[in-house]
Amino acid sequence: MTNQQSFGKYATIIALLGEEQAAQLLPDFKNYKVVSGKVGTMDLKKVISSVETAAKRNNVIDESVYRETHALYHAIIEAAEGVTRGKLSVGDIMRTVGLSFSVVRGRPYQEQTEGEWIAVCFYGTIGAPIRGKEHETLGLGINHI
Amino acid sequence: MTNQQSFGKYATIIALLGEEQAAQLLPDFKNYKVVSGKVGTMDLKKVISSVETAAKRNNVIDESVYRETHALYHAIIEAAEGVTRGKLSVGDIMRTVGLSFSVVRGRPYQEQTEGEWIAVCFYGTIGAPIRGKEHETLGLGINHI
Amino acid sequence: MTNQQSFGKYATIIALLGEEQAAQLLPDFKNYKVVSGKVGTMDLKKVISSVETAAKRNNVIDESVYRETHALYHAIIEAAEGVTRGKLSVGDIMRTVGLSFSVVRGRPYQEQTEGEWIAVCFYGTIGAPIRGKEHETLGLGINHI
Amino acid sequence: MTNQQSFGKYATIIALLGEEQAAQLLPDFKNYKVVSGKVGTMDLKKVISSVETAAKRNNVIDESVYRETHALYHAIIEAAEGVTRGKLSVGDIMRTVGLSFSVVRGRPYQEQTEGEWIAVCFYGTIGAPIRGKEHETLGLGINHI
Amino acid sequence: MTNQQSFGKYATIIALLGEEQAAQLLPDFKNYKVVSGKVGTMDLKKVISSVETAAKRNNVIDESVYRETHALYHAIIEAAEGVTRGKLSVGDIMRTVGLSFSVVRGRPYQEQTEGEWIAVCFYGTIGAPIRGKEHETLGLGINHI
Amino acid sequence: MTNQQSFGKYATIIALLGEEQAAQLLPDFKNYKVVSGKVGTMDLKKVISSVETAAKRNNVIDESVYRETHALYHAIIEAAEGVTRGKLSVGDIMRTVGLSFSVVRGRPYQEQTEGEWIAVCFYGTIGAPIRGKEHETLGLGINHI
Repeated sequence: MTNQQSFGKYATIIALLGEEQAAQLLPDFKNYKVVSGKVGTMDLKKVISSVETAAKRNNVIDESVYRETHALYHAIIEAAEGVTRGKLSVGDIMRTVGLSFSVVRGRPYQEQTEGEWIAVCFYGTIGAPIRGKEHETLGLGINHI
Repeated sequence: MTNQQSFGKYATIIALLGEEQAAQLLPDFKNYKVVSGKVGTMDLKKVISSVETAAKRNNVIDESVYRETHALYHAIIEAAEGVTRGKLSVGDIMRTVGLSFSVVRGRPYQEQTEGEWIAVCFYGTIGAPIRGKEHETLGLGINHI
Repeated sequence: MTNQQSFGKYATIIALLGEEQAAQLLPDFKNYKVVSGKVGTMDLKKVISSVETAAKRNNVIDESVYRETHALYHAIIEAAEGVTRGKLSVGDIMRTVGLSFSVVRGRPYQEQTEGEWIAVCFYGTIGAPIRGKEHETLGLGINHI
Repeated sequence: MTNQQSFGKYATIIALLGEEQAAQLLPDFKNYKVVSGKVGTMDLKKVISSVETAAKRNNVIDESVYRETHALYHAIIEAAEGVTRGKLSVGDIMRTVGLSFSVVRGRPYQEQTEGEWIAVCFYGTIGAPIRGKEHETLGLGINHI
Repeated sequence: MTNQQSFGKYATIIALLGEEQAAQLLPDFKNYKVVSGKVGTMDLKKVISSVETAAKRNNVIDESVYRETHALYHAIIEAAEGVTRGKLSVGDIMRTVGLSFSVVRGRPYQEQTEGEWIAVCFYGTIGAPIRGKEHETLGLGINHI
Repeated sequence: MTNQQSFGKYATIIALLGEEQAAQLLPDFKNYKVVSGKVGTMDLKKVISSVETAAKRNNVIDESVYRETHALYHAIIEAAEGVTRGKLSVGDIMRTVGLSFSVVRGRPYQEQTEGEWIAVCFYGTIGAPIRGKEHETLGLGINHI
């Protein structure tokens, strides 16, 4: 990855360790827009809408522009594929998730023409809807915006 | 995640930042078996066999026991679902990957009856088979062993 | 496609431009049974049942024969895979669809033994459940009956 | 399958013909733990929870150990992939199922180190939510425990 | 399943126990056309072509009629989804299969209008390409013809 | 679709009826960049690379900018999901395709901030690798660029 900044790594460290520790470990991403949050649910819709709402409220994406919503949506879905490991279902197959998420937006490529990109990371647990009967899960989605 | 150690987080930090930095950031995982490595290919088979070979050679799993091979295989496939985001194909759909991987084995739950578990993490790039035309990708698989 | 009539093309032109214009552009399909309609929803079940109901009410399929229901069902699901592009979910992943559909039944092959076939086409929009935040989508399913 | 007992075959015969006939046809599986039951629904969650409840109540798995729940869950999901043939949806795509299920647990491999394995089999019908408009379906999942 | 003969059960018993034992256990299927065989491979194409060739050579389907090839093909793919549990890959993800297969054709419904249907069943092993590192697998596909 | 031009419909008409007839039926798309072509193969890689090569040679996308390759790639994959109806395999499961394709690029939304979007459409046949044993297939992918 010689010609690009690893902003997906930055998004992942935020989801794993928090914004503060990420900023210390990877100081080169100061210029990126960031939002992070948490969501726990058996409903995949709620996972998607929690990330969308957080990204809009914190101006990581511009709510009035469809292409930004479209770019974010597909990044969320790709990250959710990692979380659900190809099944893209949660409550329908009796699973509950407890997730930290991060959304990071910026210019990872040196070339100006590459423009802005967006990364979405989820980290947390997936499992039976019973406390303790769960293991960790992770997903990362990246898209041009 | 009150009752368990986040050994999937540990596996992810290894794949992102290397074994040394992971040991500093998360010192509680000294008793876990670890192997890490790299693989670059258009062939998913080669990704799978690279991880299996590394895990066997470094005694993270016991080659002679099928249940250990079976547990590792499914953890690899789950991690690969994150990397390929639900498509589980690489060269067949004109993509190449350059991945760091980690395999971590240990006892994340306090209860002795929960026994050993295994985590596999991939981190790297996926993209067109042309240098620079790629973005980051990530996947984590976890299984009981 | 030397030996067969392109009745899937005919179904598609109906979904895109309407029955009248399809009849003008492709006049060779007069003998085919046709029904078309519209459905807007976040619920995939409603998409499926709208097409089934339209096909039964207009005698494109015979409701009392399971093999006809079975053939239509699989053609609908295949068309829905195109609409959802391999995810086969709508509301569960926060998407809404507004679709025109067509069902066409007839004998596209010269050989009498090939019997009747059925085509289902969807054309419309898919996107966020907010007006304007959507793009076009399309799907075609074909089955023997 | 020289070195292992075909306990998946045994699970399948139970789902197809019942426990009694399975015991007559395949008498070598006396030492295996077995539970069987029935479930009819448009809701995949209910299929999963029916099998889990039956397995726990009959002590085929130990409810208090997460690794046993985890092993059973993945075996159920794999069997459900066979039933739904790769779509892992029932009511969402307008299908109803009427299933017999079996869960079998034991030691199919001669080597003691291979430990216990679990098999889940579903057999029954899948189809439109109208009596008679359905055909047979089958699925088998196997996992180490 | 009051109104239909369980010819999928018959196909499964053939794949599990052989034609002879199936005929004894389920004597009501004498009028059905049957073929059975074996295939071992890392190549899904070879699985598909082995079943197609066996069905054509034994006149279970009429090679010259596309609708019969089409019906058989989709039944094979549905059975393969059970075998591979939703991934529809074998060698690409480092798995090898050793399968018995059966193809059964007949009239399972009392009503003449329901016509002929076809069932394909696979039973055998799937696993690492090393002897003994494998477990059982099963799949059933059913289609109208 | 009040606020946007149906450029996906335009791409579809090109794939179905050719550029000339599309221009007559839908004259509002003169300002869009278009390329069309044909590809016949059992290899999904060849489908992808044929579209990419045509789009680059005809300056529909700028080869030197990764974000344009990335946008086109995902539009191609989405269109291929329609063609293969959720399986994303061709030769691996014994199918051959003969496809016309179109790529259309332009500004379908009135708002300048929505920028450029790309549509990819495939139309043709899919089936057994034997002439005549095939039926029609269709797929459309749309992405922001």
